[in-house]
Amino acid sequence: MHYDKENLWQIEQQGFDEQLLGKTEAVMALGNGYLGTRSSEEEAYIGETRDTFVAGTFNSFDENEVTELPNVPDMWGMEFSFDGQRFSLSHGVVRDYSKRLNLKNGELIRAFIWEFENLKLKFEFRRFVSKNRRHLLFSHLQLTNLSERAVNVKMRSGINGQVSNEGSQHFTDGEKGLMDGKFIQMMPVTTHSRIQFVQTVEHKFDRMVSERPETGRRSFFMNYSFELAAGSDVSIEKRGSIYTSNDNDIENHELSSIREVAVQELHDIDDLSYEQLLSESQCAWEKIWDKHPIEIESENFRDQLAIRFAKYHLHAMAPCHDERMNIGAKGLSGEGYKGHAFWDTEVFMLPYFNFTHPDIAKKLVTYRYLGLDGAHKKAASNGYEGAQYPWEAANPADGEVTPVWGAADIVTGQATKIWSGFIEQHITSDVAFGVKQYIDVTGDDEFEVEKGYEILIDTAKFWASRLEYNEATDQYEIRDVIGPDEYKEHVNNNSYTNYTAHWNVAYVLNLIAHLKSEEPEIYARLDAKFDLSVLTEKLSAKVDKIFLPKATADGIIPQDDSYLSKKILDLRKYKASDGVDSLFHEYNLEQVNQMQITKQADVLLLMLLFEDLFDREQKLKNFDYYEPKTTHDSSLSLSTHAILSADLGKLEQSYDFFNQAINIDMGEYMKSSDAGIHAASLGGIWQMIVFGYGGVRMVNSKLRIEPHLPKEWSHLEYGFDYQGEEISVSADRKQMTLTKPDDGHEIHFLNNNQVYTLKNQLTISI
Amino acid sequence: MHYDKENLWQIEQQGFDEQLLGKTEAVMALGNGYLGTRSSEEEAYIGETRDTFVAGTFNSFDENEVTELPNVPDMWGMEFSFDGQRFSLSHGVVRDYSKRLNLKNGELIRAFIWEFENLKLKFEFRRFVSKNRRHLLFSHLQLTNLSERAVNVKMRSGINGQVSNEGSQHFTDGEKGLMDGKFIQMMPVTTHSRIQFVQTVEHKFDRMVSERPETGRRSFFMNYSFELAAGSDVSIEKRGSIYTSNDNDIENHELSSIREVAVQELHDIDDLSYEQLLSESQCAWEKIWDKHPIEIESENFRDQLAIRFAKYHLHAMAPCHDERMNIGAKGLSGEGYKGHAFWDTEVFMLPYFNFTHPDIAKKLVTYRYLGLDGAHKKAASNGYEGAQYPWEAANPADGEVTPVWGAADIVTGQATKIWSGFIEQHITSDVAFGVKQYIDVTGDDEFEVEKGYEILIDTAKFWASRLEYNEATDQYEIRDVIGPDEYKEHVNNNSYTNYTAHWNVAYVLNLIAHLKSEEPEIYARLDAKFDLSVLTEKLSAKVDKIFLPKATADGIIPQDDSYLSKKILDLRKYKASDGVDSLFHEYNLEQVNQMQITKQADVLLLMLLFEDLFDREQKLKNFDYYEPKTTHDSSLSLSTHAILSADLGKLEQSYDFFNQAINIDMGEYMKSSDAGIHAASLGGIWQMIVFGYGGVRMVNSKLRIEPHLPKEWSHLEYGFDYQGEEISVSADRKQMTLTKPDDGHEIHFLNNNQVYTLKNQLTISI
Repeated sequence: MHYDKENLWQIEQQGFDEQLLGKTEAVMALGNGYLGTRSSEEEAYIGETRDTFVAGTFNSFDENEVTELPNVPDMWGMEFSFDGQRFSLSHGVVRDYSKRLNLKNGELIRAFIWEFENLKLKFEFRRFVSKNRRHLLFSHLQLTNLSERAVNVKMRSGINGQVSNEGSQHFTDGEKGLMDGKFIQMMPVTTHSRIQFVQTVEHKFDRMVSERPETGRRSFFMNYSFELAAGSDVSIEKRGSIYTSNDNDIENHELSSIREVAVQELHDIDDLSYEQLLSESQCAWEKIWDKHPIEIESENFRDQLAIRFAKYHLHAMAPCHDERMNIGAKGLSGEGYKGHAFWDTEVFMLPYFNFTHPDIAKKLVTYRYLGLDGAHKKAASNGYEGAQYPWEAANPADGEVTPVWGAADIVTGQATKIWSGFIEQHITSDVAFGVKQYIDVTGDDEFEVEKGYEILIDTAKFWASRLEYNEATDQYEIRDVIGPDEYKEHVNNNSYTNYTAHWNVAYVLNLIAHLKSEEPEIYARLDAKFDLSVLTEKLSAKVDKIFLPKATADGIIPQDDSYLSKKILDLRKYKASDGVDSLFHEYNLEQVNQMQITKQADVLLLMLLFEDLFDREQKLKNFDYYEPKTTHDSSLSLSTHAILSADLGKLEQSYDFFNQAINIDMGEYMKSSDAGIHAASLGGIWQMIVFGYGGVRMVNSKLRIEPHLPKEWSHLEYGFDYQGEEISVSADRKQMTLTKPDDGHEIHFLNNNQVYTLKNQLTISI
Repeated sequence: MHYDKENLWQIEQQGFDEQLLGKTEAVMALGNGYLGTRSSEEEAYIGETRDTFVAGTFNSFDENEVTELPNVPDMWGMEFSFDGQRFSLSHGVVRDYSKRLNLKNGELIRAFIWEFENLKLKFEFRRFVSKNRRHLLFSHLQLTNLSERAVNVKMRSGINGQVSNEGSQHFTDGEKGLMDGKFIQMMPVTTHSRIQFVQTVEHKFDRMVSERPETGRRSFFMNYSFELAAGSDVSIEKRGSIYTSNDNDIENHELSSIREVAVQELHDIDDLSYEQLLSESQCAWEKIWDKHPIEIESENFRDQLAIRFAKYHLHAMAPCHDERMNIGAKGLSGEGYKGHAFWDTEVFMLPYFNFTHPDIAKKLVTYRYLGLDGAHKKAASNGYEGAQYPWEAANPADGEVTPVWGAADIVTGQATKIWSGFIEQHITSDVAFGVKQYIDVTGDDEFEVEKGYEILIDTAKFWASRLEYNEATDQYEIRDVIGPDEYKEHVNNNSYTNYTAHWNVAYVLNLIAHLKSEEPEIYARLDAKFDLSVLTEKLSAKVDKIFLPKATADGIIPQDDSYLSKKILDLRKYKASDGVDSLFHEYNLEQVNQMQITKQADVLLLMLLFEDLFDREQKLKNFDYYEPKTTHDSSLSLSTHAILSADLGKLEQSYDFFNQAINIDMGEYMKSSDAGIHAASLGGIWQMIVFGYGGVRMVNSKLRIEPHLPKEWSHLEYGFDYQGEEISVSADRKQMTLTKPDDGHEIHFLNNNQVYTLKNQLTISI
C-alpha cells in the first residue's frame, strides 16, 4: 500500500499484484450503507472475491447454514478483447499501475498502460457508489489506443449472477429483460427469504458501436465492438442500480412497480454526466466530513489519514437509512462473518455514532429494540427469561444466527463446535451498556422512554434468570461461559461477564425504583409488561450476591476462576515474529486454553468501560499483568489497550498500540483484510483519538474531557455532539480549548475531578 | 488440435491457449460411465469450466429449474507456488506444451516446461478415471526443477466444493473429515434429491514434505511444502474416489458405511503404483477395443482416429453399470442440456450398442421401461392416454424435464418459451423404434416379453389418444407439433412424426394379433394391463386413417402441411461462410420459421429409418430437394445425410458429410464443444462407417449388408453382434468377406435383394 503525505485523502496501490487481490478489494471497498461492494477489478482474475451486498437482505442457503448477506449478481465486471486477445494484466507488460481510493468522495480510480505484443492501450477506470442516490452505482472508462494502428475492441458487460458466497448460491435465476431497448434488467429472488431484487444496467458510449445482447443462465450481457483508431480514445460509461422488495424508500413492492421505478430513475438522470453525478455524491460525503472534522498535527502523516480511512468506511457500511439492519463485523466489504452484527457494534462502533451522528446511532440502538423478540426466543430456547441477545445477529427477529459448526480441527480434521452462540453471553450486557451510553451521550429521552427502558429491564431480567446459586458461598455465579478472551471456552465467572451483568442488574433496580417514584405513568406501562414488583424482588434478592471476582494479594482481578492457576508462557518470541500464527504452529487451541494466554482485552476492557470501579493502581497492576499475556489476535484488542495505556500515562506504549491498530487494515500485511475490513477496529481508531488522546469519556453518566497527546502529536482538533450541543475541542500538550455555539444549553463536564461548565468557549490548562 | 498419423490413438493440443480452454476440457474428457469429468487444467484459469458428474445423480436447484446433473466438488485441482510465485501458464514462458488424450487407455497427459524469471520447471501431469474401479480417479505429477538453484515448492490440493452449475449450487456444505490422518473426506448431499456423496482424496509423495490441513467452506485442502533441489524431481500422486448413496454396487447406503468402504478401498490399493492402476484400467479398455475393432485403410488417417475417438467417448459416457440412467446429449463432458437424455439415444447412439455391446444396449432400453411411469404422467398431464415419453429425460420416474423457458430473445430481451417438452412428440415413436431395433438386432426375447411389448403397446396407446380427427378428410392428423427440424414450431402433420406414429400403431396392431393367436399367456398378462381388445378396436379404427403426407407431383414428401408453400432462401452463401451463425445474424428464428429452411434431417431421416417405405427415386428427389435447404445446425444432421447419400450412391458427397461430421468435435472450430461433446454425433460416426460404408442395416426386421466404400477408402474391417452371433466383415470396393465362429447358429442376411446364409465364412462380390 502506498500513502502520500501530500494527499491525506487517498489510499493507493502502485503496481498490480495478482496474488494479493483481496487487500485492495476490501480496503478500497465502496458503499453507502444501503449497498456495499468490494473493489474487484473490472476484468476477472483467479483468486478474486467479487462481492456486492445490500444491507439487511439476509438469506440462508439451506437449513444447515445460518443466514448471511447474499452476494448479489455482479454489475462491475467488464471483459475486453483487443484484436481477439483477451485483456488481462496476467500477461503482457503493465506500466504506471495505480489503483486508488479517494476517501473524500468515495471514487475509485484505476489507471495503467497495458502492452501486449504490438498492442499498447491506456486505461483509466473510475467508479463510485452514489452517496446521495442509494440505489445507484456508476463506472467510467477512458480508453486510449497508444498503438501505432487501429485496434478492434470487443467489450462484454452486463450483469453476472454466476457468483455466490463461497459456493453457496442465494438467488433464483430470476426473470431477465431488456427494457426500452437499452436497460438490462435481472430480477433474482433470494431463495428462502424471498427478497425480490431488481438490478438494472445501462451502457453509454461517446461513439456508435455495434451491439448484441447475450442472455445466459443467471446472466445478461451486451457485446459491443468497435474500431479504435491509433491515438484516439473512447469514453464508456456503465450505470447500474439495485432495488429490492425490502427497501423502505419505495412504497410499492410489486415487481412491476420496482422495475418501473428503477428504469425511470435511470431515465431521469440521463442528462447528467458521470462528473455531475460524482459531484452530487461528493456533496453528500462533504456533509459527513464537515461534521466534527478531526485534525491531527503529527510527526506521522498516516495518523491523519487513518481517521479519514476509518470514518470513510464507517459511513460506507453503516445503514443510516434503515433501523432493521446493523453493521456487520466486516461491514459490507467481504463475506467474513456473513454480514452478522456482534458486540463490535455497541462496544467499538456505536460510540463514534453516539458522539458524532446521533441520528445513525439511534438507528443502531433501535435495531436492538427490534431484536427483543429474537432475544426472547434465544433466552427461552436456553431455558432463561427476558432478553438474551444473540452473539451474532442478522434480521432482528431471527435471534441467534451464530453457526454451530466451524472449520475442521487441523489435527483431527473434524469440524469444531462454535460455542459463542451458546455461551458467549456478555453480549447481553454489552447491548444494555450500549443503549445506556447512547442515552447518556445523546440525551434522547424519547428513545429512552419508548425503547431504552425495555431493553435495559429485559436484559436485567435475563441475567436474573441466568445467575446460578452457589450454596457453599451463598453467591450467584455465572458458570460455563466465554468471555471476551475467546481462547478460554467453558470458564466460570469470567470477570468481564460477571461485572457487566451485575451492572446491568444494579442499574435496572435503581431505574425501576426511580420510575416508580418519579414517573408513575411510565412505570405503570412497563409494569404491565414486566410485572415490575416481582422482577424487583428477584433482582434485589440477587444483586448483592452476584460474585464479583476480587483482586488477588497482588492486585490482579482474575479473568475467570481458573485463569490465574494456569501455566504462563512467555509470548515475547511469538510477538517478535509472526505473532499468533507462530504461536498456533506450536500449540493448538486446546493447549492455549490451558495457559495464561489471552486473545484480546478482557479484564482490561472491563477496566476501561467501567473505569470508576477500579482505581488507577489496580489498573496499572492489571495492565502490566495481562498485556504481556495478550496476543491481540483480534482487531478488538489494540484500541482498548491504546486507550487504557493512554489513561495510565503510558503514552509511548499507547502510541505503539495506536500504530499497530491503524495498520490492521491499512498496513502492509496483504492478506488480513481478505474476508473484509475490520469494522470494530475502525471504530477503535476513532476511539483511540477522541477517547484516548482527546480524553473524552462518559463515566457513570458524566462527561469527562482530559486530553493527553502522545509526544509525536503537537496538536489535535476534534469535535462531538453531546446532548444536542456541538462541541469542538482544540488541544495541544499544554492546554485545551472547548468551543460550542452559545445559543444552546450549558454543558457540564469533568476535568481532573473538577466540574467545569461550558457556555461558549473555555480554555483549560493540561 | 493436433493429430499424428503415427499415433492413431491420440488426440493432442500443442501449445497452450488460455482463450480456448473448453475445447480440450470436453474433447479430452475422461469417464467410465459411472462418473465423467472435463479435463480442466490442474491450476485454475478464468474461463475454465471445471465439471465432474456422477451419472444419474440429478437434482434441481429450486422449483423454477428442472433437474440437472450436479457439478461435483472438484478433485483434480492443484495450486502451486514456486518461491512464492503462483504458478499459472498465464504468465512466464511456456515451452513444449502438449496436452494429449490416449484413447486406448483413457490417460490424459499434459507436459510442458515453464519459465518465470529465473525459475525453470518441467511438468508432466498424468491422470485417468479408472475403467475397472468405477469410483476411482488418479493423477500423477512428475515435477523437475530445471532452475540453477533449489526452489521452494508449495502445493495446495484437496477437494473444492466452491464449484457450481453456472452459479446453481446443488450441494449442501456437508461434513468433512480427515480419516486415518491422511484421507480427506467431504460428504456433500444434493439439496433436493438428497443423494449422499462421499468424496475421498489422498496424496502421496516420494519424499518427506511438510503438510498442513486447511478446511474452509465447502472445501478441504492439504498444504504441502518442500524444497526441490536444482536438477532434482519429485513425484506427486493424488488419488480420489466418489461414492454416492445412489450407487448399486454397495449394499449399505448409510453414510458411515459408505465412508468406510471408500477409505478401505484406498487402503486396499495402497501398494499399487499409478502405473499398475493404469495398467488395470487399460485392460478394461482393451476389452472394449477388442470387441469388433474397426480398421479403415483410408487416404485420410483421421478417419481411423475418428472412430476410436467416437468409441472412446461412447464408453466414457454410457452407464454400463446401471439401468436407472441414460446418456446425456453431452454425455458426462459438460453442463449442456443438463445431462438429460433425448431421442439422441435411440436414433443415434443405441444402434452402436445394439450391434456391439448388447449388454449396455439392454440397460439403455430398460431405462425406457423404467420410464413408463414418467411417460404416463406426461401423457396424463397433457390429456392423453398411454405412455408419452419426455423430450428430455433425467430420472426415469420424473417424466418430462425439458426447461419451459430458454434464453432471452435477442431483440425483445424476453425469455423465449421452449416448446419441445410440450410438442416435440416424435420422441415417443423414436423410443418404440429403438426398442424394436434392440429386439431385432439382439434377439433378446426375454426383454421383448418382459418389457419390450409393454413399451410398444403403451406408446401406440398414446398415439391412438393423440390423433385428431379431421371430419373434412375423414383422416387422423397430428397437429401443432415440432418435428426433427426444430426451426419449425407449431406445424401440422410433420411427416416424420405422422409416419413414425403410424408405424408404431400398425406394428402394435400386428403384434397384438400375433400374441393373441400364438402367445396366449403373454396376451393374457398384457390384456389384464391394457385391455387389449378395447385398445385393438381403437387402433384398428384409426390406423388406416392416419394422414401420411403423400408426395407432390415432383415427388417431394412435404415436411409438414405448410413447409412447401414457404419462401425459399438460397443458403449457399451462408453455408460457404460461417453457416448458421451468419444466417442468424440476418434473420431471427421467427423469420427462419417462415422459410423453407431445415435445421437437420427430417423427411430424409424418415427415409433413412424407414427405407422400405420409399423407393430409390423418391429418396433421390427428396435428398436433392431438402439437403440444399438444410443448415445442419444440429450435430444430428450430418451423419444421416452421409449415410443416406452413401445409400444413394452419392459417395463423394457422402464422404464430404462424413468429414464434416467427424469434425463436429475433432475439428478446428474451438468453441463448439464448450458445453460438452456431441454424444449423438459420436454414435453418428459409428453409423456412418458401419451403416453407411459398411452397409449394415435392419430393414423391416431383416439384416442387410451392402458395403460401398468411398473412393478414399481402400479397405474396411468391422464387426457386429447379431442375435448372439459375432460377425466380422472385411470389405474393399470389390468384395466383402463375412466371418463368424461356426459353433453358433446360421445367420441370414440380404445383399442386393438376395438372401444369403452365413455359417462360418462367406465372400460376396460387390
